[in-house]
Amino acid sequence: MSRTSQEIRLAARPQGRPDSSTWDLTSTEIPDPGPGQILVRVDLISLDPAMRGWLNDVRSYIPPVGIGDVMRALGAGEVIASEHPDFAVGDRVTGSFGVCEYALSDGKGVDRIDTDIAPMGTWLGALGMPGMTAYFGLHDVGRLRAGDTVLVSAAAGAVGSTVAQLAKAKGARVIGVAGGPDKVSWLRELGLDEVIDRREGDLLRQVRNAAPDGIDIYFDNVGGELLDAALANLRRGARVVLCGAVSTYNDETLADGPRRYMSLLVFRATMQGFVVFDYADRYAEAVAEISELIAEGRLVATETILEGGVPAFPDALLGLFDGVNTGKLLLRIRKG
Amino acid sequence: MSRTSQEIRLAARPQGRPDSSTWDLTSTEIPDPGPGQILVRVDLISLDPAMRGWLNDVRSYIPPVGIGDVMRALGAGEVIASEHPDFAVGDRVTGSFGVCEYALSDGKGVDRIDTDIAPMGTWLGALGMPGMTAYFGLHDVGRLRAGDTVLVSAAAGAVGSTVAQLAKAKGARVIGVAGGPDKVSWLRELGLDEVIDRREGDLLRQVRNAAPDGIDIYFDNVGGELLDAALANLRRGARVVLCGAVSTYNDETLADGPRRYMSLLVFRATMQGFVVFDYADRYAEAVAEISELIAEGRLVATETILEGGVPAFPDALLGLFDGVNTGKLLLRIRKG
Repeated sequence: MSRTSQEIRLAARPQGRPDSSTWDLTSTEIPDPGPGQILVRVDLISLDPAMRGWLNDVRSYIPPVGIGDVMRALGAGEVIASEHPDFAVGDRVTGSFGVCEYALSDGKGVDRIDTDIAPMGTWLGALGMPGMTAYFGLHDVGRLRAGDTVLVSAAAGAVGSTVAQLAKAKGARVIGVAGGPDKVSWLRELGLDEVIDRREGDLLRQVRNAAPDGIDIYFDNVGGELLDAALANLRRGARVVLCGAVSTYNDETLADGPRRYMSLLVFRATMQGFVVFDYADRYAEAVAEISELIAEGRLVATETILEGGVPAFPDALLGLFDGVNTGKLLLRIRKG
Repeated sequence: MSRTSQEIRLAARPQGRPDSSTWDLTSTEIPDPGPGQILVRVDLISLDPAMRGWLNDVRSYIPPVGIGDVMRALGAGEVIASEHPDFAVGDRVTGSFGVCEYALSDGKGVDRIDTDIAPMGTWLGALGMPGMTAYFGLHDVGRLRAGDTVLVSAAAGAVGSTVAQLAKAKGARVIGVAGGPDKVSWLRELGLDEVIDRREGDLLRQVRNAAPDGIDIYFDNVGGELLDAALANLRRGARVVLCGAVSTYNDETLADGPRRYMSLLVFRATMQGFVVFDYADRYAEAVAEISELIAEGRLVATETILEGGVPAFPDALLGLFDGVNTGKLLLRIRKG
C-alpha cells in the first residue's frame, strides 16, 4: 500500500458556497495503531448536507470543524490493523473517519457492518445515518399513521427516498418533490403517488393540486419556499418534521423564515426538529426494519458513487448542493 | 330603556390598520326574542387581538366577519327577556354578542356566569377566553413542568398575565416581556422572576441575559423579533406555544417568518399552534383551577375598562394594538 494518506483539511471558513480557498489537500504518513486503536482503510465517504453546517463557527448540535482539522465525514472501509480488542483485521466498518484515505480510530462510534446484508455503500445510505434519520423522523417525530398524506422534499435524496418508501410501506399516500424530469421519473418508478418537479415553480399550487385535502406530515429537508407551500396546505393536526434546510445552507445571511408559520395555529399543527444521534440506542430497530424491506424488495436502496478519491471531495460536496445524485451520494476513496 | 340599539358593522376590509372607513355605526330597533331566543343587554365587550384576523377574507379557524355584518365580539351582560328554557331574565351571561348594545341569541355558546365568584369583566378575562387560552396553551400545548423556565410575551396582556401567574403558581421561573416601565413595574409586582422591557431593544441579548440557561417554554403572543430571540435561546426539548402574532396583525403583507426556526432542530424543540375552542369540553376544569387561584390571592385578575359605549369601539380596538391595557381590555357598553 502507499506510504502516505491523502486528507482534506479545512483551510478557512467559507462565506456562502465553499470554494478552493476553503480546503487544503494534504498528506501524512500512514500511522500505526497504538494500544486500543484501529487503522481503517477508507473505501467510501458520505457526502451530507449537514457538512455545510459543520463549517460554520456557530453553536449547534455538534461542534464545528476546526480550522486546520481533517474535514469530518462519515465513511465505510476495512480494518487493516488493530490493537483494539473489539475489532479484527478484515472487519468492515462505518464511522466518522474524516475525508482521508486511512484513519486511526479508538473505535468509538465505529460499527461493524455486514456486507452480506447490503453492500458497503448502503450502510452509509438506507442502513446508515440517512436511513436512521428517515426512520426516526417519520415514525417518532412525524408519528406516521396508515392513511396519512406525506409530503417529502428532496425526495430523490438519501433521506427523502428512504422516507418516501418507508411511508409507502406503511400505507401512506406519498407526494415527493424533486428537481428535474430524471428524478421525477425515478420517483414514479419507486411507486410514489404524486411527484412534484420543483423546477416547474409555483410550489404553492403544485402542492395544493397534489394534496387537495391537505398534508398530514411534511418531512422537510430543504426549507425555503417549499416549507411555506407545505405550511399553507396542512391538514388539521399536521406534523412538520424539520430535518434540514439544504436550500439555505450556503446562504451568507440568515434566510427568511417560513412566512406562513402561523398556519401552525390555524391547523393546530406541530413543527418539530430532531437530531438523529438522539436515537442511537434504537438504531438496531431501524436497521432491522429497513433491511427487511430491502430484502423483500419493498425498499430500493440507491447510491450515486462519484470517483476521484480524496482530491475530488470539494467538487463532490458542491455536487450534493447542486443535486447531482439520486439516493445517497458517496465518494469512492479506495483506489483500484 | 332606549328603543334602539347601537351597533358597529364592518363597512370595508381594512388594508393594514383599521380606520374610519372600516366601520359603520348604525342603530336598529331593539327586537323582541322569538321562541328559543334571549335578548341580552350587553354591559361589556371584549377587545381581542384575534378580532383583526376576523376582518381578513382568508381561510382560518373561524370564518371572517362579512361586509355589512355586526362586528363579532365576545361580551358579557344580562338577559332582559327570554323565550329560551335554559335562561331566565336576570341571568348574567357571556357569549359572542357582537359590538352592540342589545343582542338576540339562540343561546348557543352562551354561558351563565356567577358574579359572586368574580366580577363580570373577569369572566371575559382570566375566567374567559384569555384565561382558557393561557391554561390550555401552557399545560396541554406547552406541557409545563415545575422548574421550567417560561418566557411569556405580551405579559401584561390578558393572556400573558394569566400565563405568567399560572406558571408561577406551578413552580416555574417566569420571564415576562412587556412594553414600557409601567407594565414592567406591574409585572414585577405580580411576582415574575424577570421582566424585559421590549422598548429597550436588543431582545436577543435581553432574553439571553434573563435566561442564561435557556428557555423551556416560550408562550408566543406576538411573533416578530421576539419569537426569533426566543428561538435563539431555547433549551433542549423546548416547546414554543404559538398563540398569536399580534405584532404582525396589521401588516399589509405577510411578515417575515422566524428566521431562526432551524433552532427547533438544534434544540430538538417543538413549535405548536392551537385554538382554544378545541378545549371547550374542558373549560370547567380551567375555570375551577383559575378561580381557586384567584380566591387564594395567588392570581390577580386585572381588567382595563374603556368608556364610551359602542361608538368608542374603533378607537378601543386600536388601543389594544397600541398596548393601552394592563390585563384584559374591555369596553363598557351599558350606559349609566
